[in-house]
Amino acid sequence: MSKALDMHRQWAGKIEVVPRVPVNNAEDLSLAYTPGVAQPCLEIAKDASLSYVYTRRHNTVAVVSDGSAVLGLGNIGGVAGMPVMEGKCVLFHRFGGVDAVPIVLSTQDTQQIIDTCVAIAPSFGGINLEDISAPRCFVIEQALKEKLDIPVFHDDQHGTAIVVLAAMTNALKLVGKRMQDITVTILGTGAAGAAIAKLLLASGVGDIIMADRTGILYPGRERMDFSKQELARLTNRNRRTGGIAEALRGSDALVGVSGPGTVTAQMVSSMAPHAMVFAMSNPDPEIFPDQAKLGGAAVIGTGRSDYPNQINNVLAFPGIFRGALDARASSITENMKRAAAQAIADLVSEQELTADYILPKAFDPRVGEAVAKAVREQAYADKVNRI
Amino acid sequence: MSKALDMHRQWAGKIEVVPRVPVNNAEDLSLAYTPGVAQPCLEIAKDASLSYVYTRRHNTVAVVSDGSAVLGLGNIGGVAGMPVMEGKCVLFHRFGGVDAVPIVLSTQDTQQIIDTCVAIAPSFGGINLEDISAPRCFVIEQALKEKLDIPVFHDDQHGTAIVVLAAMTNALKLVGKRMQDITVTILGTGAAGAAIAKLLLASGVGDIIMADRTGILYPGRERMDFSKQELARLTNRNRRTGGIAEALRGSDALVGVSGPGTVTAQMVSSMAPHAMVFAMSNPDPEIFPDQAKLGGAAVIGTGRSDYPNQINNVLAFPGIFRGALDARASSITENMKRAAAQAIADLVSEQELTADYILPKAFDPRVGEAVAKAVREQAYADKVNRI
Repeated sequence: MSKALDMHRQWAGKIEVVPRVPVNNAEDLSLAYTPGVAQPCLEIAKDASLSYVYTRRHNTVAVVSDGSAVLGLGNIGGVAGMPVMEGKCVLFHRFGGVDAVPIVLSTQDTQQIIDTCVAIAPSFGGINLEDISAPRCFVIEQALKEKLDIPVFHDDQHGTAIVVLAAMTNALKLVGKRMQDITVTILGTGAAGAAIAKLLLASGVGDIIMADRTGILYPGRERMDFSKQELARLTNRNRRTGGIAEALRGSDALVGVSGPGTVTAQMVSSMAPHAMVFAMSNPDPEIFPDQAKLGGAAVIGTGRSDYPNQINNVLAFPGIFRGALDARASSITENMKRAAAQAIADLVSEQELTADYILPKAFDPRVGEAVAKAVREQAYADKVNRI
Repeated sequence: MSKALDMHRQWAGKIEVVPRVPVNNAEDLSLAYTPGVAQPCLEIAKDASLSYVYTRRHNTVAVVSDGSAVLGLGNIGGVAGMPVMEGKCVLFHRFGGVDAVPIVLSTQDTQQIIDTCVAIAPSFGGINLEDISAPRCFVIEQALKEKLDIPVFHDDQHGTAIVVLAAMTNALKLVGKRMQDITVTILGTGAAGAAIAKLLLASGVGDIIMADRTGILYPGRERMDFSKQELARLTNRNRRTGGIAEALRGSDALVGVSGPGTVTAQMVSSMAPHAMVFAMSNPDPEIFPDQAKLGGAAVIGTGRSDYPNQINNVLAFPGIFRGALDARASSITENMKRAAAQAIADLVSEQELTADYILPKAFDPRVGEAVAKAVREQAYADKVNRI
């Protein structure tokens, strides 16, 4: 990986801010700056929605992180998270045509993060929260959704959940099961696990078993913060208890968003027939595909690009913000998330669908546009559009 | 000015954020994003100064405004100030090669502005405060200078002061006077007036008379906030009192940063011989050049591009941040400001110098580089460099 380090040094930053207007003479200056610039200022002062017409707000998203849960690196702090945030901004542009500005924070205080986002919000058409640890991320996202009239989206939660739902949608066709009939075991109860559980529930899943390091969540279990308590109420109808092995026994699907190497082939073989295994811990999954296959899994996905069926957020977030910005949406609704997942799933036709191809590839040029269209149309259907 | 409005609508934003790296295949993705990106993150986590090596921080400045004192428009609020901030960012790039990110705020609370800037500071190599009203701007700038180790520069104060000092430096040669012998009358005691007074004092000016709407500042005068009280202590050695007419009588120079039309030809004629008049209220100056000439002014400057000797901040701020970033300066010292002013003044040779040409033009391609060089070298001399 020293190549990546060398490249980062050579690049000297992965994004830059460039003018869209010429400034070659006094007249250019008088239009783009003083005195001409006074006119759009006065128009926006009269009607703040014109900030979407006369400035770049209509296409600009902040990627905000406190660096408390960066990729597999944990709490490295805001400034150290910047290479990830710049990378995210590159992907926003490459796959969604979105101008994304990385904002890394010197604070990890929940209220200060909320206050900061509220303070800078008029600069942006949306806020993508990134790599903020649970359960703080839930508090921050909820507060910002209440306070702001621009889309706020924690990608580690919802981007992941959307792509998992897309993968599950297509995997179900292969194994011939229905969403309402299956039990899904989610390993990991952090940002991603919580959001996956809620999106699957909203999509009509039969039941969910969630497990953290302590074991299966159930009401009254010890070592549960407010988020886990809520998840315990929403899942595990039969009040099962135990560890990972018990959580997987008889389950139709495994969704791993926890840590590497916690699942064995034997555990997979204890699952229901035609098990679906999405082991997304990165870089090393909960169980590697060859072992999952040995356990009898019918469909296998990971977070990695070097195995089939990569569960990759990049399938979701660029198109989601593209669609939300194009509708000038005031928020991203649950329906918009489900529409995004359906649009991703629909890009794999029944004819193409195999156990090794349940999701479009990251570089499939249709993805961003299809997701954007579905999200935009759902924004209109949900009446959160403002254009 | 409806042309400026039309152009702003067509431009749909005057800046954009673009990738500097290719993302065309899985290998590109693995270098610019996961898993390769983990390496620079870990390096920065070990040594935060490497954020200047592995991210765009080394070239990136935030242009932060609460929209409380936008150009001649007054308090129009953050969101309505965005066209100005985007324009400023265009100029930063055009004249200094700086990536500038406009951040307009939803708050005008002094402490919240300070907290917000501190929170987002790890994302940037410097902060340019813009169009924040006095006296709050002084409190904010001072607090940020104490809390942050990146340059913080309120352009309305210091950019203006630097260009005025440059103009004064060259005008003095024309009228054959020395800085230490002259009295300068400053009309306007806000952000620009205060900074001009302090920079002229640091440059050895003989005396300064400052006046606001109530009249000349002197210790003990009523209607003075903490900033005016300080200015009253620093200026007006002979405890003069009265209004604008009294403030100008016998003075060697007028610096107007107040409002239009407050000065008459007769007042100028009451000044010392070979008076210097810098009437910078925009778009309409304190006195128009023809009237100032009628009053006997020897050298006349304004803030406008359609008269000779435009006192234009764009001569200063792009090169100042360019130089500060290149030295990775932790602050912008008084010496660096004076070095910038001298560099601007020096671009007009003794042979070229006339009453109609005391400052280089905004589009003189030498300006940004000359200012950057002087500021960078002074950063080293002042030992605020970190590279």
